[in-house]
Amino acid sequence: MAYTISHSRRLRSTPFTRGVEAAGVTSYTVYNRMLLPTVFESVEFDYRHLKQHVQVWDVSVERQIELNGPDASRLMQMLTPRDLSKMRSDQCFYVPITDEDGKMLNDPVAIKHDDTRWWVSIADSDLLLWIKGVAVGKGLDVRVFEPDVSPLAVQGPKADDLMETVFGAEVRDIRFFRYKRLAFGDTSFIVARSGYSKQGGFEIYVEGSERGMPLWDALFAAGKDLNVRPGCPNLIERIEGGLLSYGNDMTMDNSPLECGLGKFCKPTEGNDHIGHQAMARELAKGLARQIRAISIPGEPLVPARAAWPLMHDGVRVGQVTSAAWSPDFTTNVAIGMVDAGHWEDGTELTVQTPEGERKALVREKFWI
Amino acid sequence: MAYTISHSRRLRSTPFTRGVEAAGVTSYTVYNRMLLPTVFESVEFDYRHLKQHVQVWDVSVERQIELNGPDASRLMQMLTPRDLSKMRSDQCFYVPITDEDGKMLNDPVAIKHDDTRWWVSIADSDLLLWIKGVAVGKGLDVRVFEPDVSPLAVQGPKADDLMETVFGAEVRDIRFFRYKRLAFGDTSFIVARSGYSKQGGFEIYVEGSERGMPLWDALFAAGKDLNVRPGCPNLIERIEGGLLSYGNDMTMDNSPLECGLGKFCKPTEGNDHIGHQAMARELAKGLARQIRAISIPGEPLVPARAAWPLMHDGVRVGQVTSAAWSPDFTTNVAIGMVDAGHWEDGTELTVQTPEGERKALVREKFWI
Repeated sequence: MAYTISHSRRLRSTPFTRGVEAAGVTSYTVYNRMLLPTVFESVEFDYRHLKQHVQVWDVSVERQIELNGPDASRLMQMLTPRDLSKMRSDQCFYVPITDEDGKMLNDPVAIKHDDTRWWVSIADSDLLLWIKGVAVGKGLDVRVFEPDVSPLAVQGPKADDLMETVFGAEVRDIRFFRYKRLAFGDTSFIVARSGYSKQGGFEIYVEGSERGMPLWDALFAAGKDLNVRPGCPNLIERIEGGLLSYGNDMTMDNSPLECGLGKFCKPTEGNDHIGHQAMARELAKGLARQIRAISIPGEPLVPARAAWPLMHDGVRVGQVTSAAWSPDFTTNVAIGMVDAGHWEDGTELTVQTPEGERKALVREKFWI
Repeated sequence: MAYTISHSRRLRSTPFTRGVEAAGVTSYTVYNRMLLPTVFESVEFDYRHLKQHVQVWDVSVERQIELNGPDASRLMQMLTPRDLSKMRSDQCFYVPITDEDGKMLNDPVAIKHDDTRWWVSIADSDLLLWIKGVAVGKGLDVRVFEPDVSPLAVQGPKADDLMETVFGAEVRDIRFFRYKRLAFGDTSFIVARSGYSKQGGFEIYVEGSERGMPLWDALFAAGKDLNVRPGCPNLIERIEGGLLSYGNDMTMDNSPLECGLGKFCKPTEGNDHIGHQAMARELAKGLARQIRAISIPGEPLVPARAAWPLMHDGVRVGQVTSAAWSPDFTTNVAIGMVDAGHWEDGTELTVQTPEGERKALVREKFWI
């Protein structure tokens, strides 16, 4: 059964919504209280096109939080277990954010402007409120706010070709998770080599809502010969690639280590991170569960609306949190959290889906 | 154009979703990252029924935040400009919550269990993150978390009759914004006389998701003779009644005073509220804009997806943020924010809607 979405100002439109709807979006989700397209032609059509051509994605829902002031860098380091001390001003860092218990509050990308100015490009939670609360509570000298910045992503194997026509050959030199500020019309945008797919591409941080549609139109005009289409983060492709989704595959119940993000959690010299002690205790104790790729062979399943229990001998030993049929790998690809003792590659479990019990195979690697 | 909603675990189902969908919900919105029904038969049918009979509403989206510990009351008073010093343990208080700049972060109802334990029943923002951030930043001795509590509302003129059949005659004695703990099966729930309509009724704070459907079923079984139906906050009825919606009619750009919430903002003796100084400055300076009822005569308008500019002599002097056709008052009822100098009762302005310019009349009172 398909339900329609009731619109209101509260479910914010984006600078690109006019373009997205003219281009034929059929479904939305809501992310950071804003509309995020989920389907244009069909999830499977969009998936095949993404893997072959190039797409323009309205990812305005990746709202920015600006930290601005003398204490900006100090505050930024309090938020994350990742060591930011050597980060340069043209870098983007994937930064798990935790609370004092070492539990995930968000998994954004931090963009460093300079030591007194950062953007945090957030996943689906009001991280602004956490950052402001900590800053106010600690009496730090920093302003924390949501600027008028809306990312537009260009993703797919032909992304470099399309971007060159609009931003010039310089885009090709941008390294992974680095950015350059490139001219567009009478202004310039931060352009980073990043994005929520494994097909390669860029994210353009559009400053000023009124500049959204001119950029959208320029990309589509330039991309005709490249078979450019509107797109969006694709459920199948992101599961195949092991791209986690905050709120789906990890929540405030999970630590970064459980989410397989240990490599982003090197304690800093001053142990500045708010969750430092909790995470040290967790490390000493050992992990209780961990994110894994899960294959569910057989007929295609309807995507998960809720966590599906993973069972072993009648005992719950984990859950599947995202699942979709993969045409390329001819299995249901899934992401799950699996208890210690059951997370080895090849372990066979049972998953309880709304369509009945199915065999589930734990995999060490995603489909990449 | 109607868009479908793409389901995922991230858009949380509720303990009542099974009942809501079996009862024929057709549309949802997303509120606190959870599904909130918006239409069963039609907005207008649901509206007429709500005003005549009794409805059961899944308002699980009013998530609870628990403050638990020795510093709970001290923290609670830091959050709001409302004086909580005389609040008793059976009361619910509507409490504007502001940041250090005196801007609205949420407008929840606070439920006092005792001096060391509170629930905050939130509107649409992750207020948990603000409260936790402040608590951690200030080093307070209090735990802040989301308990497994999901409110179910019973609203409409026959609400007392229906509630009596399930909870006994004692419900009739509950005063407005007071609560009692009443037995249900082998447990008991907090039952408050409150709710997001002007038709009267109750909110039941269901502790334990597994207890949701038994209560849902009990209410529908008991309510057959009362013409009970599933319902939800109704756009028309709530605008007529002047019930503001956070994210629609007020955002982090607005102060409680602008929102007409001055009576909930009496400074406490110790000026404990985080936004105290900012609000004192605002009071001294005078208000720049204020919430008003707005009537838009003429043909029915499609409900607002974005703010509609209010104009006077070609200058923008405010905006309409919620609007709907009222069958009972045969005008489009609306809520807007109007600049000083234009907010007097009877002021005639122009509103720019997606269906063209229309006359807009500022009203001092809502339709109650």
